[in-house]
Order: sequence, then structure tokens, then C-alpha cells
Amino acid sequence: MQFDEVVQKAVEGTQGAVAGLLMGTDGISLAHYVKPDAGLEMEVVGVEYASLLGEVRKVSEILESGEVREVTVSTDKYVVIVRAITPEYFLALALSPNGNIGKGRFLLRVQSPEIRKEL
Amino acid sequence: MQFDEVVQKAVEGTQGAVAGLLMGTDGISLAHYVKPDAGLEMEVVGVEYASLLGEVRKVSEILESGEVREVTVSTDKYVVIVRAITPEYFLALALSPNGNIGKGRFLLRVQSPEIRKEL
Repeated sequence: MQFDEVVQKAVEGTQGAVAGLLMGTDGISLAHYVKPDAGLEMEVVGVEYASLLGEVRKVSEILESGEVREVTVSTDKYVVIVRAITPEYFLALALSPNGNIGKGRFLLRVQSPEIRKEL
Repeated sequence: MQFDEVVQKAVEGTQGAVAGLLMGTDGISLAHYVKPDAGLEMEVVGVEYASLLGEVRKVSEILESGEVREVTVSTDKYVVIVRAITPEYFLALALSPNGNIGKGRFLLRVQSPEIRKEL
């Protein structure tokens, strides 16, 4: 499996998506794809969200709500979807606020088992 | 406007929702509604998410992505949707993982302007 292809497919397959990556929770990227006109540094975004995912996991542990599957953050400029793949890796997709969030979530979810097998 | 009613309506109007609240980012609840069989302490959940919203805002500031509108966290046991109303207040809704997340997000979003006027 080409991780780069998976990430690119998720970006290209989601209307309004501008960038995506597969990253370790240590902030080291395994694969990323950024549309030419994206106007954001996806790896920088990923590093911040890697750290945020750690915070979300702490909250989930405190509340005994089990494993964190997904985190979606909507801001004025972007929507970022983070899908936990394993405890060590996650997929992230950045979309414009009017992008198809449902499609993005779907693509990350269905690709997770495939990627998990390879990690 | 009865804040309690707004929160109750969001819970009752969303298939799979078990609890909701309107809370200050200082963790002090203004209104909350929990279904009898919910099995979760929504105010405890709210306090943790109040703190998490602060972390998300820091990330958004670092990435210069503007105001945080919404945060959705999916875990094994619950989905929690947090909608920022003002810098000081947010609405939160807890759903079972199979609940209607789209409807929950919609109800929180459409009720935000009404609540904002009153705060």
C-alpha cells in the first residue's frame, strides 16, 4: 500500500478538501498531500493536532469513554478531521468550511482498517 | 428565553442524544438536561470539554485559523459535540455513537444566535 496514494485519494475524493496527512502522534509525518492552492502548511497543522489528539485522549480517559475514534474541529478558515488509526498514528484532512465534511469523515473511516494492517 | 428548554429541546430533538448543557468556559453550568437513563454525569463531561475547548482555541490561534466554531469528539462510548456560542459560553451535546450527529450539530448551530443574544 502506498500511504501517499491513500492520503491523496482522501483529499481528491472530498469536495472542498485542501490537504491531508498520515502522521505519528509524535508529530512525524508518514505521508502527506497538499493541493497546490491550499494555502496551509499541513505538516504544521498535523503537529498541532497530534498534540491536541493527546489532550482529547486524556479527557476520554478521565471520563472513561473508551478509545478516541475521531476529532473534528471547525474554525472560521478550516475544518480539520482527525481519525485515530492506531494509538501511534492518525489520518488528518483539512477542508474549507463549506467542504463536504461527511464525505471526508467517510473516506478516512473506510481507509482506516487498510492502513492499520500496514502499520 | 429559558436556557433549560433550549438544552432539553436539543437533546429531545436528536435521535440518540442523552444529555446536553450550556456552560461557561470556566466550567460553571448555566443549564443542563440529562435523560434519565443517560448513565453519564454531563456536568463532569462539560468541565472536561470546557478545558479542551481552551486547548483547541490555542491550536487555532497558533495556526491562525480564526474563531473555533465547533468541536466534535467520537469515542467508543459517546460522541460529544461542543458549539462555541461566545468566547465565554458553549453548548454541548452527548450522543450514543449511533446517534444522529448531523441533527445534533444542526440544532446546536441554529440555536446559537438566539442564545448569544441573551448572554
